[in-house]
Parts: sequence; structure tokens; C-alpha cells
Amino acid sequence: MIIIFNSHATKDNVQELIADIHAKGLKTNLSEGDNTTIVGVIGDTTKLDIDNLKSADYIADVKRVSEPYKKANRKMHPENSYIKVTDKVTIGEGIFNVIAGPCSVETEEQIIEVAQDVKKSGATLLRGGAFKPRTSPYSFQGLAGEGLKLLLEAKKATGLPIVTEIMNLVHLDMFNDVDVIQVGARNMQNFDLLKELGKCNKPILLKRGLANTIEEWLMSAEYIMAGGNENIILCERGIRTFETATRNTLDIAAVPMLKHKTHLPVIIDPSHATGISWMVPQLAKTAVAAGADGIMVEVHNDPPKAWCDGAQSLNPKQFDDLMTDLKRRVEFEGKKFYI
Amino acid sequence: MIIIFNSHATKDNVQELIADIHAKGLKTNLSEGDNTTIVGVIGDTTKLDIDNLKSADYIADVKRVSEPYKKANRKMHPENSYIKVTDKVTIGEGIFNVIAGPCSVETEEQIIEVAQDVKKSGATLLRGGAFKPRTSPYSFQGLAGEGLKLLLEAKKATGLPIVTEIMNLVHLDMFNDVDVIQVGARNMQNFDLLKELGKCNKPILLKRGLANTIEEWLMSAEYIMAGGNENIILCERGIRTFETATRNTLDIAAVPMLKHKTHLPVIIDPSHATGISWMVPQLAKTAVAAGADGIMVEVHNDPPKAWCDGAQSLNPKQFDDLMTDLKRRVEFEGKKFYI
Amino acid sequence: MIIIFNSHATKDNVQELIADIHAKGLKTNLSEGDNTTIVGVIGDTTKLDIDNLKSADYIADVKRVSEPYKKANRKMHPENSYIKVTDKVTIGEGIFNVIAGPCSVETEEQIIEVAQDVKKSGATLLRGGAFKPRTSPYSFQGLAGEGLKLLLEAKKATGLPIVTEIMNLVHLDMFNDVDVIQVGARNMQNFDLLKELGKCNKPILLKRGLANTIEEWLMSAEYIMAGGNENIILCERGIRTFETATRNTLDIAAVPMLKHKTHLPVIIDPSHATGISWMVPQLAKTAVAAGADGIMVEVHNDPPKAWCDGAQSLNPKQFDDLMTDLKRRVEFEGKKFYI
Amino acid sequence: MIIIFNSHATKDNVQELIADIHAKGLKTNLSEGDNTTIVGVIGDTTKLDIDNLKSADYIADVKRVSEPYKKANRKMHPENSYIKVTDKVTIGEGIFNVIAGPCSVETEEQIIEVAQDVKKSGATLLRGGAFKPRTSPYSFQGLAGEGLKLLLEAKKATGLPIVTEIMNLVHLDMFNDVDVIQVGARNMQNFDLLKELGKCNKPILLKRGLANTIEEWLMSAEYIMAGGNENIILCERGIRTFETATRNTLDIAAVPMLKHKTHLPVIIDPSHATGISWMVPQLAKTAVAAGADGIMVEVHNDPPKAWCDGAQSLNPKQFDDLMTDLKRRVEFEGKKFYI
Repeated sequence: MIIIFNSHATKDNVQELIADIHAKGLKTNLSEGDNTTIVGVIGDTTKLDIDNLKSADYIADVKRVSEPYKKANRKMHPENSYIKVTDKVTIGEGIFNVIAGPCSVETEEQIIEVAQDVKKSGATLLRGGAFKPRTSPYSFQGLAGEGLKLLLEAKKATGLPIVTEIMNLVHLDMFNDVDVIQVGARNMQNFDLLKELGKCNKPILLKRGLANTIEEWLMSAEYIMAGGNENIILCERGIRTFETATRNTLDIAAVPMLKHKTHLPVIIDPSHATGISWMVPQLAKTAVAAGADGIMVEVHNDPPKAWCDGAQSLNPKQFDDLMTDLKRRVEFEGKKFYI
Repeated sequence: MIIIFNSHATKDNVQELIADIHAKGLKTNLSEGDNTTIVGVIGDTTKLDIDNLKSADYIADVKRVSEPYKKANRKMHPENSYIKVTDKVTIGEGIFNVIAGPCSVETEEQIIEVAQDVKKSGATLLRGGAFKPRTSPYSFQGLAGEGLKLLLEAKKATGLPIVTEIMNLVHLDMFNDVDVIQVGARNMQNFDLLKELGKCNKPILLKRGLANTIEEWLMSAEYIMAGGNENIILCERGIRTFETATRNTLDIAAVPMLKHKTHLPVIIDPSHATGISWMVPQLAKTAVAAGADGIMVEVHNDPPKAWCDGAQSLNPKQFDDLMTDLKRRVEFEGKKFYI
Repeated sequence: MIIIFNSHATKDNVQELIADIHAKGLKTNLSEGDNTTIVGVIGDTTKLDIDNLKSADYIADVKRVSEPYKKANRKMHPENSYIKVTDKVTIGEGIFNVIAGPCSVETEEQIIEVAQDVKKSGATLLRGGAFKPRTSPYSFQGLAGEGLKLLLEAKKATGLPIVTEIMNLVHLDMFNDVDVIQVGARNMQNFDLLKELGKCNKPILLKRGLANTIEEWLMSAEYIMAGGNENIILCERGIRTFETATRNTLDIAAVPMLKHKTHLPVIIDPSHATGISWMVPQLAKTAVAAGADGIMVEVHNDPPKAWCDGAQSLNPKQFDDLMTDLKRRVEFEGKKFYI
Repeated sequence: MIIIFNSHATKDNVQELIADIHAKGLKTNLSEGDNTTIVGVIGDTTKLDIDNLKSADYIADVKRVSEPYKKANRKMHPENSYIKVTDKVTIGEGIFNVIAGPCSVETEEQIIEVAQDVKKSGATLLRGGAFKPRTSPYSFQGLAGEGLKLLLEAKKATGLPIVTEIMNLVHLDMFNDVDVIQVGARNMQNFDLLKELGKCNKPILLKRGLANTIEEWLMSAEYIMAGGNENIILCERGIRTFETATRNTLDIAAVPMLKHKTHLPVIIDPSHATGISWMVPQLAKTAVAAGADGIMVEVHNDPPKAWCDGAQSLNPKQFDDLMTDLKRRVEFEGKKFYI
């Protein structure tokens, strides 16, 4: 349920109503925008008398929110959310951020070299996997803690904030210097992981599951937000369908659909979406046109020799060419590459 | 199998080889581009001795084509195909065409009014359904022959060439003045219909089936081409997936994938892809960025009163706004709205 | 809407009400069962006053039928439908029929030999394709009219009624001696074909489309029934999903779901469902346990040499072993192999 | 790679070869069946000289195993695996086990009552959720540790071994008295969880993910087995498809496919597969006919009042009727309800 206040409502009006609602055992979500103040109510809203509320002169309207996600719902929070990663990097509507880096951290030389290359080309964040989700137990599982250290070396060397995936809650301590924690597609409904990440306040990059609906995805965001952490960036990485020509099927319509339903930023991962490097640039362009707030691209200094996902990685030259093109496109959309 | 000729090969070299191949019971496909002459061979290519062919001094190379589609294959026909609809309207790479019009032809007033509106906004072809594929036998089935007549009235009134769907071969005679014949998604594998359309030489707009792979789609194009009609425009209209937030899931990656595999033009139908009118403009923009050769959009003068698909139709004002925006985008891509 | 009459209602009560309803421009569907008489109403039922109807003393109840399919709806027709194929062969609840035969009719010797083998093993109908739906225009398209003739030869030789697929309305005349006309998966939404088949009264075997929902499937049956032909047998042949280990995914739950929603008989095609011959017997067994009214199985005298679908065909020995096992199972379910 | 020994090979022959292989840094999997001894080799098998191996007189054959799963592969382990749960309960080919119980443990009274009911009807294991995977953070999350205690009370009261889901590794200690640990569909690719479960030796019930292929499923089993725990029972619970009439689509063909590819037992969960209680009995019957080694069914004493999944739960009477029918069916298949 959302309660929309009149423009003349005072801060006291708002606070008193919130206190009343809490007294009834419900939770509230306060959204103070430029134009409107909205109190979202979460819980058994049958306890509230809609007519009674509407009759208050400082209340403009009261509406039931039928979607199961509340904190993530744009109705509760009409203003776009901006996720501050560092003083220099913010992710959200109007700014186009590019996260780039290799599938896995392999060696110190590799990760620093790629970091320097992508930074030069205009990437604003560095990605790299230390803990890798591999379908086979016999595949390279990532350098784990050592991988995180190397990522931090690359961060020191370039100043790029880092995004990396967490696979196991027991590793959470090791992520203190990680700027954005990624929840992989296969963990989108690892509810205990989401609850735990709800307790920290680091930005979370939440990838959509292989075959999860937009509603389920927003409910996973809701898990994290319900825990207290509202810093979520959604990442569309392709969904599983019958088509086998590409690794997944990029659901480009998810971008405008999410912009409509939620206030959280949305980016696209064209590398996992297709699985084919030559297609990555074209899909990155469609991401800009679709209104996405950024992309996450796999870049490796020598893709044929990559320890994983080489087939979908761009080399530094290809990435640089793409960035040159994306800059014109981002400008064309009236957005900025940097805040 | 494709046989690539050396630049110094003469027309006689080419013709003699073609004759030899025919004598063995195989078919050929001659592709004379600016730079290269290629003869594609279709049939039991085990009858040909690759080494023998390669040894001829006028032959540069011989490669087996593993894809089951041949005539539709870019390897056989490296140059982009241009489908000439009228003296003024050609569909293909570098030109962005917009097909617009209502889901169904309803009345003379409606179709002429919409035709005038969309023409004014820059559409280059008019669509309208006379024979409607409805899931229910109790739904409006279209005005049939009467609908075709009204479409032709609109064509006379505006000069816009028309695109309309054929549901039944027995109606083919009625389509003489139709400029582009549409094969609907549900008829993409109506093989007898495809064979018959292969015998005429009108441009065919071939929609992808609800759950057909890109390969099956190109094989359906192959059916028409094998019949002798190479004038095909492919139309991506969304595929069926588990996601129910949109009517279908637009497979935007199909555009670059098709540009890679085939020489045939590709357009997008953002109306059927989403089923939601407010999403149509955003997806039309991604179509431009994806490299599509055009879009087909449903436009109705009064969507809430449309006899079908009102929920996904734009009104003339919305269409006009979209066209204003698309023009800048098409220019940005270095393409033209008109040949 | 369904109007349920009281047990004391007279034939006059029923006929008068039907006449009134027709006068309002609506259609009716009379279902006189052992226990209840139901009149189903199709059309704009807002024209009828439910309260008024309910107040009549000979009417027990009036319910709106929300499903878009009416004639196919079990609410309109609570009794199971029995499709009479010949004096000896009827398809429906309580009887388990086995349709068997090769994917394609190849030669007179092949079709007669297979027909004799499957008959000996207990098949009640013979299948064989004369017009084949092939994804590729270069694949064997079937013997067409010649194939139909050979099928009829096999029918004469064995007495087995025949089931064969129609691909094109222009061939309908050639199907006069065909006992059951099959509509293939790729033609399930070829609405013009369905309308035409609604005008004849031959039994129609309606295969489910590759990615069509149960509701769409029943609406396709509704097309045929609305035309006047109520003799439909539904055939589940696997649906398209992300899993590639089998050719399709057999939707076994479709059987009980359909038995719940419709009065039409339901059979399973385990050959196309899996595409793998060794899996066919196991799935045929699940078909019996699921409550299906029969199966359709591909049998070829020499599968490795079959002109199509050899990989999923059983040889006569395998078919005979399967039939021996199925007989016990059908008995176990309290059903019969023959009427 | 699998190395198949001749019938006259000695234990020394086998052990020496295994030692040689280990010395090269590879792992082995010894399978000593009634008829054949097979050593499976896992790792970079290019280090082994196939011809050299084949030349040894005590080796019958050497084959490369192309599937990425090895330990789970029937080629490596031709004999069926039997998972011993307790002295009285073993799960595997030839025995049909029924796991039954409520979706969630709610109260002591509820869980004990249901346990007693299902035991009386012939269930061999009790299920009940203490940690519930809920799509919404606002839904009942389960009684957690308290729920496990109540389950153990029910185990004491009835002697039924218990199956319950683990959501988080930090809870593993609490599972000491749990007989079978369940990995839910949404955690099928929670690789860190699988690795950890590979270190204990409790039987693991591994549910198939919503949209995971059979190969990915076996690779998840491989994760657990590679860790050292080979006690895995696979559970098919329906996959996600375009069809919305049922909650999921039961992939019944997965049963024979898995029996072909792996030696691990396979059961079916008809409750989650359909989401509709009246369909559960029919699908349980098809499970028996498909060759499954058991089913897992949700049973609640008062489904309309269940705290979750009431719509798909059977009440005790319905469960009892189903069990009566299943017993005849299991006997018919020549299997046993008890070891």
C-alpha cells in the first residue's frame, strides 16, 4: 500500500502517521522526492482503514500495491535510485557505466594489464572472477582469496573500483575491499545468501537467473532490501530459451520493463548473453539504445588463451573500438560516461 | 559447397563449370559480387571431387557449406540482398524502412486515415490485416477480400505500397495488387504455403515462428527461394519463453546473428514482440541500434477501440513522436530513411 | 455459459429455451447425458439475464464458462466423446488404441509389410506419411498422391483403417478413403486448414504445436468443432523446451489436464516426443499409466534404412514386444484394446 | 576414459594399473561389478596411451568417455547404485520408496500427526521443510532449528527416517540427525554448497533446477561425488516451460534417460511438478510406469490451512488411496515397496 501526501503536509504529519503504522506491527518505507512524499506500507495492510487515511487533509491518495515487491517497487519510490560506488563512480539513470575485465583473475600480470587497458578505454569499474561458478567440478574454480588479492592490486594500480562474485557466505569477510559484490545468475535465488547480503551495505550486482521471471528477480532484490541494503544494481545476462545459436537469449525488453517497475539501476552483460565475442559490440549498442545504465563486458588480453569464457571475450583493441563507438552513442542519448 | 573463383576467371570458365555440375544432377546458385564470383552447389555434393576442383587454376577455393540452408546462406551470396518493393521503396542494408498500420483493416475511413497519418510521419509501407490469424474461432476473422479492397483504396489515396498477410493459398489470386505478402508466425512452417509462394516473385515478409530457431527460420526462407522467389524479408517478432510479463520475448540478437548468416534483410516487429504499447518506442530504438533494416509497427487512430491488438498499438501522435526520434537515430547509424 | 436443467425438465422446456437463445443471435450446444441435460451458450452471453434463467423451475443452475473454448469444454459436454473410425475401431475413454506405421510410405512392399506386422501385433490403425512436413526443402517430401494410394493398398491388405497427414487443402479430395486426417504440429494454428476440416466429418487427429499451450490447442480443436466437425482426437507429441537431450519434452501431465478440461480423447506420440527409439517403449508405458486413450508409434521394417525418422522408429520385433507388454498394462488399467 | 578388464585379470593387475595412473596425476574410480571390473579415469587422459593399454592381455577394452560427468556416469559404474538410508530403508532400482510429508513443519501436533498417517499408509521416509525457500522475503521462512527438532520428534514417534532441505552451509551441524539432506531446485548450482556436501557422507536428495539440463544436473551430482560423497538420489520436480496451466512441466522422459546415463537412483516429485493436488495421483502413477525408484509427495492434514503449498498437497485420505493404488502398480512392475 502506498500513502501519497499532499504538498502541504508537514514532517510531523508524516512522522506521526509512520509511528501509528509501526504501532500496528507494519513496516514503512519513506520516499521523499522532489515533488512528492510517499510512505510505502509493507505487511498485513488489511489492518489499515483506507477510507480513514484518505480522509486526512494532508493525504492526497492511498493505493494498494499489488506487486509482491515493495521496497524495489517504483510506486513506493518514484525517484530513480543512484548507487554510489566510490566518490567518482555512481551507477544510475543518466550515467552510463562500463564494467570491464576478464572472466577470471589468472595472474598478477594479466589482471593489471587488462585493468590498465580497460581504464584507458574508459571503463569505470573492473570485473574479474576470483571464485568461479563452473558447471564442472573439474574445471578451473578460480584463484579464490589469492584472486581477490590480485584484484586489489589492480585496483591500487589503476584506481578502478572492483566488482567480483561471491559464491559462499563464509568468504564475506574477504570482500571488505571489494566495491561491488556480484551475485551470480545461479545464486539469484540463494535466499540465505541474499538475506546475508542484506545486512551489509555494499552495492550488490544482482544477476538475473537463467530462467527467472522479472518478478522473481525483483523479489530477490526485495530480499536484500528487506535486510536493509538498498544498494542494488540489476544485471540482465540473457535467459535460457529453446534457441541454441547463442549461449542465452538477451531479453532486451527487460530494460524498459524494469525501468517501469523499479527504481533500481539496470545494466546488461552482452558477453554471457550471447557467448560469442563478435556479437558483443552490437549488443552493447542495443543496450545503450534500450536505456540501460551500463554494461558489463568480458575483456582479456589474449582471449584464445583465457582460462574460461575466451569465446565471448573481447581483446583490448576490440574493447577500445567499442568504447569509442559507445561514447558517441551515450552522448546521443543525452547521458554521461562519468558523473 | 561453395566454389570461389579467382579474379582472373572468365565468364566461360564459370559457365562451363556450372554446366558440368548440372550434368551431374546438382543445382547451382551463381553469386557475382563486386569482388568475387561464387558458385554455390546444392544437392549431393559428394559427387564432386573437391581436390580436382581446387586444382583448376581459375578456382581460388572450395569449401563445404555445413549449414542446411544454401540459397539463403551468406557464404553462397556474400553481398547483401536488396528487395525492391516499388520504384521508390527498397528494403535492405543501409536503408531503414518503417511499415506501419493497424492490426486489422476495419473500415474505409479507418484505413485511409491511418494510412495518411503514417505516411505523413514517414512510414514507407502500409500494413493492415484483411485475413486475421485469431487463436479463437469466435474472434473477428478479418474483412477478407473486402479488407484487401480497402487496403488498395488506401494505397491509391497515399501511394504507400501495402503489406498484408495471406492465410490460405486459395486467396493468392486476390493478392495481385499487394506489394509484399506476409507469412505469419503461425504459418512459418506451413511448407505447402511456402512452396507456392516460391513460385510467385512478390516480396515475402517471413515472420519467425513462435518457437522456431534461426536455422528453422532460414530453412523456411530456403523453401521459398528453392521455389525460385528470392525476395524475402525476415521479420523477428519475439519468441515464446517462460517470461509472461511481455507477450513474447524480443530476440534482439537475432538481428546481428542473421546479418552474419544470411544476405536477406531483417526487420523487427516491436508491437507483437511486447504486446504493450508503451514499450514499443523503446524497442523500435533498439532495433535501429541492433542493425535492423526496418520495423513494422501497429498504429491505430483509436487504440482502445481497435478490433484487435489495441493494447499494443500506437496512436498517430505516438507514432509521429517515435518517427521523429527514429529519424535522428537512423541518421546516427549512417543509414537512410529513403533510397 | 452453461445452463443446467433439472431432472424433471421436459424436451419442450429445452427446445423453447434454445429457440429463445437463437433469437438473440447466440449459438447453442446441446449435451444430453445420462444424468444431466446441459445447454451451452456461445456468443455474447451478456445478452442473457442469468437471474431470470435461474428463476425458471426447470433450470438447476447457470454458470459462466470462462474458458474461451466452449464446444471442446467438458463443462459443456460432461460425457466423454467417442470417435468412431470404423465399425470395429472407436477411440475414447476406456479403450486403448495403438496407431502404428512408418514415418513415410516408401514402397508398396514396405508399407504392406509393416502394416501386416503391426496388425499382427495388435495395432488398430495404420499410420504412414504421404505428404511429409520437412524442415528442409531438399529432404524427401513424401510420395504424395502415390503414397496415399499405397496406404490404401495396405488398408485393403490388412483391414486397418489409415491415419495420414494433410499438408494442403487442395489435396482434401484425395483423402476420401483416409479414415483419420492428421493435422501436424506445425499446422496446429493453420486456421484456414482447421476451418476447412470443420466442414467435413472425418475424424481429425490434431497434434499439439511445438510450443502451443493447452488452451491454444483446445482453441484449435474449437475451430474445427465450430465448423461442425466434432470428431477430434488430440495428440500430445512433446513440446519444445531448453532440454536438448531429447528431440522434444513429453508433457505427460497434458493427459490428465486435458481429461479434466475437455471431453475429447487424448493420445500420445512417444516417437516424436523423444526422437530416440530405445526410449519409445518406456514412454508408451507411461502413456497407459497417465490415462491416455492410445499411442501413435513409428514402426519401420528396417529403421537404419528409413527415409526419415529412422532414429526414433521401432522395428517390428521391438514393436511386438512393446505390444505384448502394453496389453498387460491396458488390462491392468481396466481398459480394452478393442471395442 | 574407462578401462575394462578381462575376466581373468587379477586384483594385482588392477591395483598396479591404478597406481601407475595415480602416478601420472590422474584420479581413478574403481567399479567391481558381478561380471566386469572397470577402472574409470578422470583428469587429463591424454597422458595415457590408449593403444599401450589395450595391448595388455588383461585389458578387454579402453574407451573414451565423452560426457563431462564421470563418477556419475553409468559407463564408469555399470551397476545400479543403492543408497542406504537406514537398516530398513534403501533407495534404488527394484525398490519403490515413497517420501511423504508436509511442505513445512508447522507445529509438533501437525508434523507428528502427518508422520503417523503417512507411515500407516506405507511411506518409507518423512519429508518436512524447516528451512523454506520462499520467493518472497515476506513469506513464512520456516521454523528453522525448531522445525528440525520437531521433525526429529516425528522420527522418534514413528521410526520414519527424515528428508529435509538445507539452505545454508552454516546450518550443516544441525543436520546430524537428518537422514537425507535435500538440495532444493534453486540450489542445484550452488556449487559451494555441493562441494561441502561432498565432504559428508549423508545421502543427498538432489533436485533438478528449474531450467537445468540433464547434463548440468549430473554435473551437480558430480560435484558432490568428486568431494567423496557418492550417496545421491536424483529428484525430477518439473522444469520451467512456456506452459502456464501447471506450475512446472514434469519431464517424465528424464527417468529413462537418467537410468541410461547414470547409476544413481531417480525419484519424482509430482507435487511441485504440477502445483495442483488433484493431478498428483495421476502423475505418481506415471512415475511408477516410467521406472522411477520412488516419489516424494506433499501431504498435509488440512491442505486449505497449510502454511505453504496447500494447493498441491494431498490430505491423508487422498494419500492413503493413492498408496493403495501404487502398491498394486509397484507389484505389477515387479518391484518392492520395502527392501
